Amino acid sequence: MPLIRPSVAALTPYTPGEQPRVPGLIKLNTNENPYPPSPRVGEVLKSFAAERLRLYPDPVATELRAAIAELHGCAIENVFAGNGSDETLALCTRAFVPPGGAVGCFEPSYSLYPVLAAIADVPTRRVALTDSFEWVTPDPGLAPLFFLTTPNAPTGMLYPRAALEAFCESFRGVVLLDEAYADFAPENGMEFAVRYPNVLVSRTLSKSYSLAGIRLGYAIGAAPLIEAMFKIKDSYNLDALTQAIGLAAIRDQAWMQANAAKIIATRERVTRELEKRGWGVRPSATNFVFAKPSGRSAAELFDHLRAKAILVRHFPGPRTGDFLRITIGTDEQMDALLAAF
Amino acid sequence: MPLIRPSVAALTPYTPGEQPRVPGLIKLNTNENPYPPSPRVGEVLKSFAAERLRLYPDPVATELRAAIAELHGCAIENVFAGNGSDETLALCTRAFVPPGGAVGCFEPSYSLYPVLAAIADVPTRRVALTDSFEWVTPDPGLAPLFFLTTPNAPTGMLYPRAALEAFCESFRGVVLLDEAYADFAPENGMEFAVRYPNVLVSRTLSKSYSLAGIRLGYAIGAAPLIEAMFKIKDSYNLDALTQAIGLAAIRDQAWMQANAAKIIATRERVTRELEKRGWGVRPSATNFVFAKPSGRSAAELFDHLRAKAILVRHFPGPRTGDFLRITIGTDEQMDALLAAF
Repeated sequence: MPLIRPSVAALTPYTPGEQPRVPGLIKLNTNENPYPPSPRVGEVLKSFAAERLRLYPDPVATELRAAIAELHGCAIENVFAGNGSDETLALCTRAFVPPGGAVGCFEPSYSLYPVLAAIADVPTRRVALTDSFEWVTPDPGLAPLFFLTTPNAPTGMLYPRAALEAFCESFRGVVLLDEAYADFAPENGMEFAVRYPNVLVSRTLSKSYSLAGIRLGYAIGAAPLIEAMFKIKDSYNLDALTQAIGLAAIRDQAWMQANAAKIIATRERVTRELEKRGWGVRPSATNFVFAKPSGRSAAELFDHLRAKAILVRHFPGPRTGDFLRITIGTDEQMDALLAAF
Repeated sequence: MPLIRPSVAALTPYTPGEQPRVPGLIKLNTNENPYPPSPRVGEVLKSFAAERLRLYPDPVATELRAAIAELHGCAIENVFAGNGSDETLALCTRAFVPPGGAVGCFEPSYSLYPVLAAIADVPTRRVALTDSFEWVTPDPGLAPLFFLTTPNAPTGMLYPRAALEAFCESFRGVVLLDEAYADFAPENGMEFAVRYPNVLVSRTLSKSYSLAGIRLGYAIGAAPLIEAMFKIKDSYNLDALTQAIGLAAIRDQAWMQANAAKIIATRERVTRELEKRGWGVRPSATNFVFAKPSGRSAAELFDHLRAKAILVRHFPGPRTGDFLRITIGTDEQMDALLAAF
């Protein structure tokens, strides 16, 4: 018998955005926040007693989850905390998709979902958005689990709230609203997670909290769904430092919101500048813009920028290949980008 | 259709040892190291720039894995690094066990393995050790994956090296040698991971490196096995701090070895003291002893110690219920334990 499971041997893994260590690089490719995390994070690092690390962390992250529950006005039983949204999403495929099931998602959306389905040995049922990446209602019986990025990635677009709620209500499986970018959007679906027994809302500290480096994501939803995820997670999935740093960051909402406001202002300015240059920019509710260059192909421009030490993201393919996804950096970084065209 | 996968709804999750926050508690229940981690860990915490946390970590932990490869004299392609051994073990069930497969393990051994099999929706094929917990050779075709704790837990016992190697050579699936306690043992099976295409050796920084709080484990083995695990892990499974702290600790072998030597000396002294009191102590190659009390039942003694704020571990059941598993703490802690009987 083969040593490696055939479906794993055949798998094409997810490709994370590049993390090159090039001095002076303007890195606009992985939707990181250009501003530092809350100063309280630095205080945790300075004051954390290394001796505490000899002990196992709290396996269920009680204090952190209590703070998240307070933030969203729910009970601690409604909160799962994971090693990045990555863990939350992967656990959903294992907790909610039986053998012979499937994973539903929009096309285009986050390219990790089909990989998670393949790892779980189930097919992906893709629902194509319209040509302009607008909402299409999936069939209520499409799959036991639907991953729904909102605002969407890589398009940056928000869906109509009523359509989103009607889908949550009618869908017969679990809907995970992947709200990685919600802090940059004018509205979100958090209340659906409290209202419907089949809806989870996933958030991350990677973007708005400037903490991609600590790996912390969480999900809010009905207690039975959260309990199922806890049953199958790794025993100690969140290390002691991530718990302590995450807690400090969650408690400093003002810092996160001020950074998000700066990024939103820069995003609106960059959108106007690109439109002035004839680009087709999708309306963004995130910390990036998805835009079709004018005059040159996206692939050419990607290479041109790369040669100038500016890294953006290009997703080849029929739906996305004409666009670049550009993370919103500081105003100075975006001016450098605009000057480089 | 039910929202939660039926096998998950039916699952009894793994129960980690208690982590109570009781002042003055002597905590000898989860095999933590009583000594602090390398002073270099504290230096990393003090000098780590919080600003770096806004960026994603290296998804494949290059620097850390290079240091581990150097330590064991293998190539970086032979090293997987995970969010604790928990992640390594769980990935093995997903990478090496096809649908309809099974997971093999000894009985008794680490109680997590049957839970991992249940999460993967496959049966556990248990191979009973002898009445005195000695080696029995499993059938070469038993399962696509065999989890083999060595030295064993909760017994603390080492298996005969020749039997272990013969099994590695004959077994037709993947053998994971779970060497969580190897730094407290006179010998280990690391060379089998280099020699055989079907053998992985798993190590952890939780015990000998006093770093249970950072969640770092690694596996050494043939490149195709390691590659399969990388393909299906969470994209950024190791946070930036865990990578930096783990690297500092791995580079300070002298600190780890000095602590391990102190623990071994204490273990031998405690073993003699318990034997003097008529206890049946299994020969331990770990940082704990598995021992059958004299005069009182293990369950009674567990409660008696707990009332005196000394926490040990008791595994009820026909094979293990007569024993206590006692982590080796400092000499002072062990004197307090001996005085409490």
